[in-house]
Amino acid sequence: MNKQVPVITLLTDFGLQDEYVGVMKGVILSINSGVQLVDITHALTRHDVVQAALIVKSTFSYFPTNAIHVIVVDPGVGGKRKVLCCQKDGHFFIAPDNGALSLIIQDGNVDELRAVTNEAYFLKPVSHTFHGRDIFAPVAAHLSKGLDMSRLGQEIGLSDVVTLDLPAPFLSPRNALVGKILSIDAFGNLITNIDQETLMRFGSGQRLEEMVIMVGRSKIRGVSTSYDSVKAGSPVAVLGSRKLLEIAVNQADARTYFKAGLGQAITVKLPTLKDGAPR
Amino acid sequence: MNKQVPVITLLTDFGLQDEYVGVMKGVILSINSGVQLVDITHALTRHDVVQAALIVKSTFSYFPTNAIHVIVVDPGVGGKRKVLCCQKDGHFFIAPDNGALSLIIQDGNVDELRAVTNEAYFLKPVSHTFHGRDIFAPVAAHLSKGLDMSRLGQEIGLSDVVTLDLPAPFLSPRNALVGKILSIDAFGNLITNIDQETLMRFGSGQRLEEMVIMVGRSKIRGVSTSYDSVKAGSPVAVLGSRKLLEIAVNQADARTYFKAGLGQAITVKLPTLKDGAPR
Amino acid sequence: MNKQVPVITLLTDFGLQDEYVGVMKGVILSINSGVQLVDITHALTRHDVVQAALIVKSTFSYFPTNAIHVIVVDPGVGGKRKVLCCQKDGHFFIAPDNGALSLIIQDGNVDELRAVTNEAYFLKPVSHTFHGRDIFAPVAAHLSKGLDMSRLGQEIGLSDVVTLDLPAPFLSPRNALVGKILSIDAFGNLITNIDQETLMRFGSGQRLEEMVIMVGRSKIRGVSTSYDSVKAGSPVAVLGSRKLLEIAVNQADARTYFKAGLGQAITVKLPTLKDGAPR
Repeated sequence: MNKQVPVITLLTDFGLQDEYVGVMKGVILSINSGVQLVDITHALTRHDVVQAALIVKSTFSYFPTNAIHVIVVDPGVGGKRKVLCCQKDGHFFIAPDNGALSLIIQDGNVDELRAVTNEAYFLKPVSHTFHGRDIFAPVAAHLSKGLDMSRLGQEIGLSDVVTLDLPAPFLSPRNALVGKILSIDAFGNLITNIDQETLMRFGSGQRLEEMVIMVGRSKIRGVSTSYDSVKAGSPVAVLGSRKLLEIAVNQADARTYFKAGLGQAITVKLPTLKDGAPR
Repeated sequence: MNKQVPVITLLTDFGLQDEYVGVMKGVILSINSGVQLVDITHALTRHDVVQAALIVKSTFSYFPTNAIHVIVVDPGVGGKRKVLCCQKDGHFFIAPDNGALSLIIQDGNVDELRAVTNEAYFLKPVSHTFHGRDIFAPVAAHLSKGLDMSRLGQEIGLSDVVTLDLPAPFLSPRNALVGKILSIDAFGNLITNIDQETLMRFGSGQRLEEMVIMVGRSKIRGVSTSYDSVKAGSPVAVLGSRKLLEIAVNQADARTYFKAGLGQAITVKLPTLKDGAPR
Repeated sequence: MNKQVPVITLLTDFGLQDEYVGVMKGVILSINSGVQLVDITHALTRHDVVQAALIVKSTFSYFPTNAIHVIVVDPGVGGKRKVLCCQKDGHFFIAPDNGALSLIIQDGNVDELRAVTNEAYFLKPVSHTFHGRDIFAPVAAHLSKGLDMSRLGQEIGLSDVVTLDLPAPFLSPRNALVGKILSIDAFGNLITNIDQETLMRFGSGQRLEEMVIMVGRSKIRGVSTSYDSVKAGSPVAVLGSRKLLEIAVNQADARTYFKAGLGQAITVKLPTLKDGAPR
């Protein structure tokens, strides 16, 4: 009754047009039909390991302890890249060794990290084109049945995994905080790499509503508490649901409004800096 | 064995590109891992409360009693709009107070209606940008575990909720029944606001196959029983699966065929009215 | 605990924009709330029975025995076409009699084949426009509860079902194996009708890596073991996850690269044939 049902989440760039996600679920259910399967998204841009890493980092903690998170963004499928299994904060993660797990590994608290090599838990014969079906799915299913992670393969060092070279926000010579647009969601909200903690440290006492945010040559006054803080059609900066500084337009699309793109700079200034006369 | 598994349905305008729907499911499963989660659709046009209201009304009764229906189309998130929880016909509904529940409330049989305010059942801290995750999901999960609805907040009156101003079909001076296209589905079928009952009352004895349906200047003879009643590529009027008059083209797309759009008038005439010479 | 949870898979051309798939799930859960529901895909091209048949054939065996596979690609809904229920290899299949099941039926091992006519297991009143909701979903749900298939309707002969006229690969006068592109997946991979067995028989001793594959006037040397066998941006032929010859471009889109389309010829030659001077 109150027994915890094991949860497996799936994050891929397979899309939902083909049968590939369904087949992975079939393989999982053939091993453990009593799991909860949750799609995080399958609409990642093809081979976009960076978005995969950002999404894993910002989602996993909303799931129950012991959840198993499967990430298949795998441009190197069938080649020499390793398959990783990581345990951290009571969650399990399975992904190719291409950086998809690097952000959560860098965040610390890793309890165990292994290269998955034990073919006893694979679907055979293992194809060279669809490890999601032949390796990731069955390994996740076996873990959901309580398989000890040590059975999957040898431990590897935290420094032996592929890492991503993500831009960090930095202080400009004129003492502005300079970040970048890391993701744009389907609402057109511009999600930056400026996290709440960095923003607070930068402000050191200045209140959020006094900061000035520059998107190109456009100026937004203050970090607001909700999209709704401005009238419909107006731009607004908020600390979004990922706890990152986010530029939105209330009830509209900030990507279109600002003609913004991934990687574009977003700058935060403090009012004491005299941010200039109005344009 | 034959125990009823609780069902939670999700209807949002989040799309499936981002991780937002997956995160809501994580929050639900963290509270109750033993639920059935069903996606109604997440492809609502952004902020289209009218479509949300129409879909809730036409879908909920196909689910088992005690199902919990979560609707997150929420342009006012983080602002002053209330969150509603409604019990009706043995089903539960949770949605922002923006009209999404107004059609089912107007249909009567509401057993209980409350403003959701008890933060004990929220995910904390509550963000101002993602109440789907912080309020709707955890409240639904607690209800699925049997929480008494009275714990969520104060009762409010049926007349205190935001309503929608939807067009109703009407009789023209020349005694035609004039409706509108309310929705267009992905098949391109044009779904009107003319329900079966209104059509029957209008016909008063005339058989459906004798009515004449006008889409712009095009004429369709009779309300047929299936798309297949006409040959492929021909237009056809049917009482569709929502029990609303629907204009389709057999094995093709009526939106394209008629260059039709939302809100366009659809007129039904009776043969005794002498609907004129053929054009 | 280790009890097998019944699995129902859904394969339709409904898309995910509308509420139709969700409603089918509601009907199923109203009859049996304890099932695992798996979406194979709902993004089939409208009325594309051939893709449906190919996907059913290549996916079903990845699911647990006793899984119930529901296919709703149904241009003839409400017309005279039959509804089939088939048992084969311990799996159940429910689909309109339009060819969707013809490939698995032709593959043999059919244990039982019936026309579904017993309205006792339908949702009433049965509409003429949405048999997915009114017939397919409830019949699948009843099967998942252990209903004996013989209750659904009369047995019919294997030769009484609608079949598809799919092209088979053939030998050209100059002894090349000529196949066709049957499907193109969302990665842009070109999936042919040349299966592994036919390719091996054709090669009779020649190794896969010595074959030459022609896509239009472009030549690919050898059938490789993985996409990764060539450098990014280069074309590659592999035996894909469906065990069919597949033309891909490593980390890119073969459809765009080759300007390829469905039905286009793909030719395989053996090196002993002297496939001509390099272009």
